[in-house]
Amino acid sequence: MMRWWGWGEESHPPALPPHALDRLRHELGLAPGARGERVDLDAVRLPDSALGEGARAALDRAAGAGWVRDDRESRIRHAAGRGLPDLLRLRRGEADPAPDAVVSPGGDAELRAVLEACAEHRVAVVPFGGGTSVVGGVEPLRGGCEAVIALDLARLDKVDVDGRSLLATAGAGVRLPELEARLAHAGVTLGHFPQSFEYATVGGCVATRSAGQASTGYGRIDELVRGVRLAAPAGDLAPPALPASAAGPDLRELVVGSEGALGVISEATLTVRPAPAVRRYEGVVFASFAEGAEALRACAQRDAAPDVARLSDEDETRLTLALAGETRATRAMGLYLRARGIRGGCLAIVGWEGAGHHVRRRRARSLAVLRHAGAVPLGAAPGRAWARARFEGPYLRDDLLDHGVLVETLETAHRWSRLDDLYRNVAGALRAALRA
Amino acid sequence: MMRWWGWGEESHPPALPPHALDRLRHELGLAPGARGERVDLDAVRLPDSALGEGARAALDRAAGAGWVRDDRESRIRHAAGRGLPDLLRLRRGEADPAPDAVVSPGGDAELRAVLEACAEHRVAVVPFGGGTSVVGGVEPLRGGCEAVIALDLARLDKVDVDGRSLLATAGAGVRLPELEARLAHAGVTLGHFPQSFEYATVGGCVATRSAGQASTGYGRIDELVRGVRLAAPAGDLAPPALPASAAGPDLRELVVGSEGALGVISEATLTVRPAPAVRRYEGVVFASFAEGAEALRACAQRDAAPDVARLSDEDETRLTLALAGETRATRAMGLYLRARGIRGGCLAIVGWEGAGHHVRRRRARSLAVLRHAGAVPLGAAPGRAWARARFEGPYLRDDLLDHGVLVETLETAHRWSRLDDLYRNVAGALRAALRA
Repeated sequence: MMRWWGWGEESHPPALPPHALDRLRHELGLAPGARGERVDLDAVRLPDSALGEGARAALDRAAGAGWVRDDRESRIRHAAGRGLPDLLRLRRGEADPAPDAVVSPGGDAELRAVLEACAEHRVAVVPFGGGTSVVGGVEPLRGGCEAVIALDLARLDKVDVDGRSLLATAGAGVRLPELEARLAHAGVTLGHFPQSFEYATVGGCVATRSAGQASTGYGRIDELVRGVRLAAPAGDLAPPALPASAAGPDLRELVVGSEGALGVISEATLTVRPAPAVRRYEGVVFASFAEGAEALRACAQRDAAPDVARLSDEDETRLTLALAGETRATRAMGLYLRARGIRGGCLAIVGWEGAGHHVRRRRARSLAVLRHAGAVPLGAAPGRAWARARFEGPYLRDDLLDHGVLVETLETAHRWSRLDDLYRNVAGALRAALRA
Repeated sequence: MMRWWGWGEESHPPALPPHALDRLRHELGLAPGARGERVDLDAVRLPDSALGEGARAALDRAAGAGWVRDDRESRIRHAAGRGLPDLLRLRRGEADPAPDAVVSPGGDAELRAVLEACAEHRVAVVPFGGGTSVVGGVEPLRGGCEAVIALDLARLDKVDVDGRSLLATAGAGVRLPELEARLAHAGVTLGHFPQSFEYATVGGCVATRSAGQASTGYGRIDELVRGVRLAAPAGDLAPPALPASAAGPDLRELVVGSEGALGVISEATLTVRPAPAVRRYEGVVFASFAEGAEALRACAQRDAAPDVARLSDEDETRLTLALAGETRATRAMGLYLRARGIRGGCLAIVGWEGAGHHVRRRRARSLAVLRHAGAVPLGAAPGRAWARARFEGPYLRDDLLDHGVLVETLETAHRWSRLDDLYRNVAGALRAALRA
């Protein structure tokens, strides 16, 4: 079970190695004793549940005995997502607002009954999957209602695979690792690996229009969703899982990204692929961010894109290497860059997944384009290091918060011709804001 | 200018060769003198224009002098699309309903002014691009309004190319051949070739969510649209041309396929690709439709799909060969099928477009998968024959109507595991209905 105040299981080892902490102290001028606030669970301020007796009884009937919880810990655990403001709020001990109860329907009929009970008793409903939203998607806001529940979707956990069509239908509450395990039995994969992979659910990915680390190859979730079922207050919307339709606007695209605001996503049908026999991740280095971006553009526009393509700028490269410590790969990269007279340099991780011959062919093609555009290959060591730590970001964030250091992530997208402008303007605005 | 009663220019030669007509007469039991009705333009019944003086004056002001037409021919030319019911209606001489006027705004400001004038004077607006709709999309329905105009978008004809991002922004009224000619100057292509290519417009493709003959490779229009501008009665909706966004539902997908019902699509930004140096189309033959479908499934699911992939069933194959007459390719196919003891057989056209080495590599991969699945290659002759006639369907339909023969097209999509059922049920229902 995830820590109530942060990411991951209690037993997870620290993500921040001691040498990296020293380096950060030096770089940020952090006082050695600086600590981020974090209260104990007992000290969390939680308002009394506002759920009336009538509403409570109706929810008990709708969801079944035992599936309506209003104990202190359940409510605190469903009070916030995992964005930076959520973490700061929880660590301070603020569980206000919190849901007045946590309700867990076991199927579509119970879900419909819960929605009707909530409509009748003027109770707001906030769908809750993995609870990893970073945009306030699970904020238990009451609006004009008498009370608010977190609708925990964990029991919507069916998975069906149509191997012939390469389609999988999964309940909204299925977590991605569980989904991948069950897909693996059928020899397929969704290939969707957001940073939140360990806790994110199918419904959450669809509701947040998520992208993952291999989405260059497998496609973003909006490119993978074929069918979806939305339980809305006025009824169900369930566009069928067809490959395409020209019969009017695509209503699936209203549901994808709706963040729980239009109804409860209870199920999705997703494109899957044969499970890859080989996963190969490597590092390459560029003289500059602009050179790296041009190289990736060439790949993308010449049908040579790797499945994983992640380019760091000079600052992120420096930080990544500092956190990694001295390894053969970082030494090789340092030597190479010095030999070329480059200060800084930009690391990129590129990766291919699939059948062995397929990976060999596509890797050769990508590397030819990348090399032509200036990339110097660093081999598989940086790729292995990246793969080991690919889901460590949120753990690292907690460790840094413990030391009083804030970290935050932004995601955006723009056309290639505007990438330079975007990068310079956003980085400039961030630096200016942090200096102020 | 397109024939008012059918497809293409007056000067277009007949699409139905004499030997094919004989064959059809034999096959369908058609009487030698059977003729489809077709009246002269003078004999068309057209109601008087219901546009009031105030509305007319307001539209003149909004669109500019000379851009509001209510002459007989303009109204008849905008009275119907090009579906079978449209053609039968026009050939019978029925131009009722017809638009009360045809208005041609020259840009976004005029378009907005026209919409406001129409709202003020209770005039219904039907956007009109190439006029090739087959689903009643340009039917001049007045609804509860006093009058109805056809909003001819031909003057919205700008084209801008962002070669670095491989994006093109085009006015709704640009016809696809004109678009491709202008894209070719920039070394790129949209690669969108619906059967209606010669007359279809950018706005029409977006409004109808069209797919084209090479959409297996280039993607359907909904996969190519990045940005779109909709002039709606309540204001403009113009989601920017970003590669992706996770900030809520994708409103572009409401506009794509909206058939002019939500507003006027005035512009679209579309993904383009480098113009192909090589286009290679070939024929292959399968023992059965099921074998062919399985072969194409294998291609699609193993990253080996051709850009063009068109499988005919036994009946369509027989008809195609009959219309083509005796050629080296049809003789070769006949010999091969007889040698394998196959009656019938199914022809598929497969094609690849791109740089020379790219086409060679992808063709080899597709053909390996197809052969493994039972395909026998027939070489380039059937591909050339298909390419010559790829936009001839609507001409052929007119010629057949002249002889009293109706033809109609259906499009649909389903998951691979349901394809057999779909095919058998639809074909069975059609045969039963035609026999009745």
